[in-house]
Amino acid sequence: MPYRAPVSEYEFLFRHVVGYDQVAATDRFSEADGDTVSAILTEAGKMCEEVMAPLQRNGDLEPARLENGKLRSSPGFAEGWASIAEGGWIGMSAPVEYGGMGLPMTVTSSVNEMMSAACLSLQLAPLMSQGQIEALAHHASDALKDLYLPKLISGEWAGTMNLTEPQAGSDVGALSSKAVPNGDGTYAVSGQKIFISWGDNDFAGNVCHLVLARLPDGVPGTKGISLFLVPKFLPDDAGNPGVANTLKVVSLEHKMGLHGSPTCVMQYDGATGWLVGKEHGGMAAMFTMMNNARLGVGGQGVGAAEGAYQHALAYALERKQGKTPSGTIVDHADVRRMLLEMDADLFASRAILLACAVAIDMQSATGEADWAARAALLTPISKAFGTETGIRVAETGVQVHGGMGFIEETGAAQYYRDVRVTAIYEGTNGIQAMDLVGRKMMDGGEAAYRLLEEVQKQAERARGTLPDLAEPVWQAAETLREATEWLVSQGEMNDRFAGAVPYLKAFARVLGGHYHLSAAMAEKGGPRVALARFYIDRMLPEHGALLAHAQAGAEGLYALGIDDLARG
Amino acid sequence: MPYRAPVSEYEFLFRHVVGYDQVAATDRFSEADGDTVSAILTEAGKMCEEVMAPLQRNGDLEPARLENGKLRSSPGFAEGWASIAEGGWIGMSAPVEYGGMGLPMTVTSSVNEMMSAACLSLQLAPLMSQGQIEALAHHASDALKDLYLPKLISGEWAGTMNLTEPQAGSDVGALSSKAVPNGDGTYAVSGQKIFISWGDNDFAGNVCHLVLARLPDGVPGTKGISLFLVPKFLPDDAGNPGVANTLKVVSLEHKMGLHGSPTCVMQYDGATGWLVGKEHGGMAAMFTMMNNARLGVGGQGVGAAEGAYQHALAYALERKQGKTPSGTIVDHADVRRMLLEMDADLFASRAILLACAVAIDMQSATGEADWAARAALLTPISKAFGTETGIRVAETGVQVHGGMGFIEETGAAQYYRDVRVTAIYEGTNGIQAMDLVGRKMMDGGEAAYRLLEEVQKQAERARGTLPDLAEPVWQAAETLREATEWLVSQGEMNDRFAGAVPYLKAFARVLGGHYHLSAAMAEKGGPRVALARFYIDRMLPEHGALLAHAQAGAEGLYALGIDDLARG
Repeated sequence: MPYRAPVSEYEFLFRHVVGYDQVAATDRFSEADGDTVSAILTEAGKMCEEVMAPLQRNGDLEPARLENGKLRSSPGFAEGWASIAEGGWIGMSAPVEYGGMGLPMTVTSSVNEMMSAACLSLQLAPLMSQGQIEALAHHASDALKDLYLPKLISGEWAGTMNLTEPQAGSDVGALSSKAVPNGDGTYAVSGQKIFISWGDNDFAGNVCHLVLARLPDGVPGTKGISLFLVPKFLPDDAGNPGVANTLKVVSLEHKMGLHGSPTCVMQYDGATGWLVGKEHGGMAAMFTMMNNARLGVGGQGVGAAEGAYQHALAYALERKQGKTPSGTIVDHADVRRMLLEMDADLFASRAILLACAVAIDMQSATGEADWAARAALLTPISKAFGTETGIRVAETGVQVHGGMGFIEETGAAQYYRDVRVTAIYEGTNGIQAMDLVGRKMMDGGEAAYRLLEEVQKQAERARGTLPDLAEPVWQAAETLREATEWLVSQGEMNDRFAGAVPYLKAFARVLGGHYHLSAAMAEKGGPRVALARFYIDRMLPEHGALLAHAQAGAEGLYALGIDDLARG
Repeated sequence: MPYRAPVSEYEFLFRHVVGYDQVAATDRFSEADGDTVSAILTEAGKMCEEVMAPLQRNGDLEPARLENGKLRSSPGFAEGWASIAEGGWIGMSAPVEYGGMGLPMTVTSSVNEMMSAACLSLQLAPLMSQGQIEALAHHASDALKDLYLPKLISGEWAGTMNLTEPQAGSDVGALSSKAVPNGDGTYAVSGQKIFISWGDNDFAGNVCHLVLARLPDGVPGTKGISLFLVPKFLPDDAGNPGVANTLKVVSLEHKMGLHGSPTCVMQYDGATGWLVGKEHGGMAAMFTMMNNARLGVGGQGVGAAEGAYQHALAYALERKQGKTPSGTIVDHADVRRMLLEMDADLFASRAILLACAVAIDMQSATGEADWAARAALLTPISKAFGTETGIRVAETGVQVHGGMGFIEETGAAQYYRDVRVTAIYEGTNGIQAMDLVGRKMMDGGEAAYRLLEEVQKQAERARGTLPDLAEPVWQAAETLREATEWLVSQGEMNDRFAGAVPYLKAFARVLGGHYHLSAAMAEKGGPRVALARFYIDRMLPEHGALLAHAQAGAEGLYALGIDDLARG
C-alpha cells in the first residue's frame, strides 16, 4: 500500500481555498507562480513516494540506537537525508543569499507535510534544521550566518533545538543550564537537556545545537535566558568540523513510537557556544524557531493523517467481508462514515495550516500588521488541530483495519503510535490553546473577529448557490464570535484557560466549515460539495457543544478537591 | 504509583445509582447483600492491588512467547493466575453446584473491572474462561458440564473462544472450519482460527477451546454453524488431561499492546471435539458467550480507564511545573479539565456497565422480558462506550504526563496501547452500534423509550433540588427520544447504520447525565454534585451534535465515489 503524494489536493487548496494567488502576486514571491509551485510539489512528492515512504517501517523496526556513544540511525535514513538535502527540501524557504530557495512557507509547509506522511521520524530531522535556519537568519551575527547557514541549508550539517530540562518543560523559564563568557567572545555552556529530537545523527558532518541557557547575570525566569549555538564539532579556520566540543548524548529515550527519531538526553560540560541574538534575549530568538516549528508540527499531524488515511482506504478497498456491492468493506455504511470523517478533517486541518502559512508569507512579503496577527492567531490552531487530526485519523485508521489494526505488521498501528507525540512536543496542545485565548487575544479579539467576518462574508456569497451549506457556516461563525466576546471579557485569565482547549477545537471546526464551503463553491457540484456537505451536516455541529464547554469558566474545575479526585 | 481498588466507588454506585438493592432483594441473589458484597469487593480489590498490579509492566516488557511450540507466559503470570483461581474470582457467577459462587454479574463485573485496571493482559485469561463457563452452563450436555465446569471454575483448566478465521471476522458466517462426526459421538474438527486470545498458556492443566465449525450438512452462513468443545488434552477416564489433541498454536501475533496476552493462530487437524448445544445451533450458544464477553470487554475499557486515571492523577500531584498554589501541575486549569473529563466519563461508563449487569441479574432472577430487553439494549452501549472511555481516558492520561507520556518507562503509554484493542475485539464498536440500532430496535424502540422514561422521571424528581442539573438531563433524554423515533421509522437499515456510532455515543452521553444526576441527588452537595455539574455543563451538550450526525442518513455517505476518496 504505497504512499501517493496528494499534489492535486495542494494545487486545489492553493488555487481555490487559501488564497495563494495573493502570495504569488507579491514582489517577494513573484517567482513562485502556480506552474512553478506545481513543478516543485510534483518533484518533492516523487521523492517522498520513492525515497522516504519505503523507510517508514525501517525506523519502527530498527530504531536509532547509541553504540559506545555513537548514534546509529535506522537503515536507509542516511540515504534518505541525502535525498532530502540534494532536493533542496531543507532550505526551501531559507534566504537565497545563503543557498536557500526563498520559497513561500505555504510551499514549504506542503512539502514538509508530504515528507511527514511518507516517513515522520526522518522528516523530523530536516524540520529541526529548518527551525534553526530561521532562528539564525533572524537573530545571529553575520559571521555566524556566513559560516552556518550555507551548511545547514545544504544539509551538510544538521540543527537541533535544546529547550527542555527535567524540571523545565512547559515552564521553560525554570531552566538551570548555565553559560559563562570565555572572554574571547565565546561562552562555556553547561547543563543537561532532555527530549532533544535528533540530538545526534550519523549522516551530517556536524550537529549544531541551539541551546537555551542562563548567563551569570541572568535573572530568574524567561527574561534571564539567552540562546547559544553549540556545535558538536568546533569549526576550524576553514569552517570545517574540527575538534569535538565538550558535549555528548547521554542516552536515548525508549518511546511509544517515532522510533526512527532518536530522542536524546544531552549533556553540556562547558561546551563552547556562540551567542545568538542579544544577551538575555533568548526567548525572542527561540520564539522565531518555535513558531516555525509549531507550524511544522501541525503539518506533521496532517501528514500522518494523510498517510493513515491512504493506508486505511487501501485496506478497505481490498478487505472482503460481508455482502456488499463491491464485496469489500468500503461499502459498509460505518466504514464509509469513518473514511469520510478522516478525509473531511484532513481537508479541514490542511486548509487551516496552509491558510496560516499564507498569512506568514503575506506578513513577510508585505510587513502588514494584519497579516502578522492572522499568522499569530492561526499558528496555535494549526498546531493543535493538525496534530489532533493526525491522532484521530490514525485512531480511526486502526479501527477501519479491524483486528488487523492492532497487529503491527499492517503498519496502521505505527501511525497511531508515532503521531501521538505531536500533540505534546513544541508546546502541548493545552499550551497552544492557552496561547490562543491568552496572548493571541491580547488584541481584544480583533484578529479573530476579522477572520470571522471573512468567514461570514464568504458564507453570504454562498447563500444563493449553496444555501444548505452556507447557513450553518454563517451561524457557526456567529456562535464563535459570541463565545469570543465572552472570552475576551473575562478578567480572570483562568476562566479563559478553563475552556481553552474546547475553544480552540471549536475555532478549528468553524474554520473547517469555512474552507469546505470555499471548496464547494469553487467546484460547483461533485465530490467536494459532497465532502463539504458531510462535514457541515455531521461534524460542524460539534462546535456548539465545544463552545458551551469553552464558556463554563474555571470555578467548576476547582469545586472538587484533590481528595475528591483520589481513590480510597 | 500503585493501583488502588476503588471499592467505595462500587459501593456508592450499587447503593445509590444503579439500583443494586433490587438484585439483593431477589430470592436468587438474597445472600449477596450489601455487607457481603463489600467484603467480596474488598478482598478482590486487595488481590488486584497486591498480586495483579505488579504484573502489569511484566506483560509489556516480557511478552508471552512461543518456544518450540510451547507457550511461555510473562513472568509472574502463572502465580497471578493461581491467585485469581484460588480467590474464586473466575467462577464468581458460575453455578454453585459446579463449584461457583453464584454471585450476581453486577459483582463479577466490578471484580473483572478491578482486575482489568490492575493487569489487563492477564485479566483476559479468566474473562475467556468465564465466557466459556457461561456457554457450557447454558448449552452443554450434563456429561460435558460435569467434567469441564468444575475444572474451569476452579481454574485448574482454562477456556478460550475460537470464532475468527482469516476470511471471517465481523462476518462470522463466512467461516470454513469443518467438523465431521467420528461415529462415537465425537467430531473431528479441522481449520485455522486467528486472533485467539490466550490460545494457550503454561499455567492451566488443560486449555479448552470452544470452536465454531460447520458440519458436513451445515448450510452456508451463520445458520449452518455448530459449536464444539475441543480440549488441548483429551480427558482420560478419570477426567484428567490425557493424550494431546491434534491442535496446535501456529504462531503468536506481534501486537501494538496487550503483549502479556498471547494472541494465537490456532490450527485444528481433525482434532477431537464434542458438540455444545444443537447441531447448526452454534450461533445461539456463541451469543451467550459473546454477550457475556461484551460486557466483560466493556469492563476492560472502564478498568483500563481507572488505571490510566489513577496513573495520571498521581503524576499530576507530583510533577512540579509553573507557579501554582500546590507547586504541581494539578492546579493548572487545563490539567484539572483533563482529570475531570477522565473522572466524569469513568463514572458514566462504569454506571452504564453496572446498570447493564443489574439488568442481566434481574433477568436471570425474575425471568422478566423487560429486564431481558434492558440488558440487551445496554450490552452494546456498555461495550462500546466502556472501551471508548478506556481509549479516551488513556489518551488524556498520556497528555497529562506531557513529554513523559510518550516515554514507555512511565507506563502511561502502555494503557494507551493495551486498551486500543478493546474497541475492536468481541465485535468492533461499529458492530455494537449496528446491533443497537438494528437488532436492539426490533421492538420499535420500546426498550429504549422505557429507559428514557425512567431518565426523565428521575430528572423530574430532581427539579426541585437540583434544577440546573435536572433540566439539561430531561431535555437531552427528550432529544434522544426524538432521534430514536426517527431511527426506528427508517425502513432502510443503512440509514440507521449510517448514524449508528454517533447514536450509540449520544445514548451513552444521556445515560451518563442520568447516572451523574442520580449520584448528585444521593449525595446532596459535595464532590459528586460538582462532578455531575462538570459533566452536565461541559460534556453532556455533545449529545446534540452526535444526534444531528445520527439522523443524517446514508445517502451522503455514498455521494462520493471510490475514485473521489482516493488520491492522485
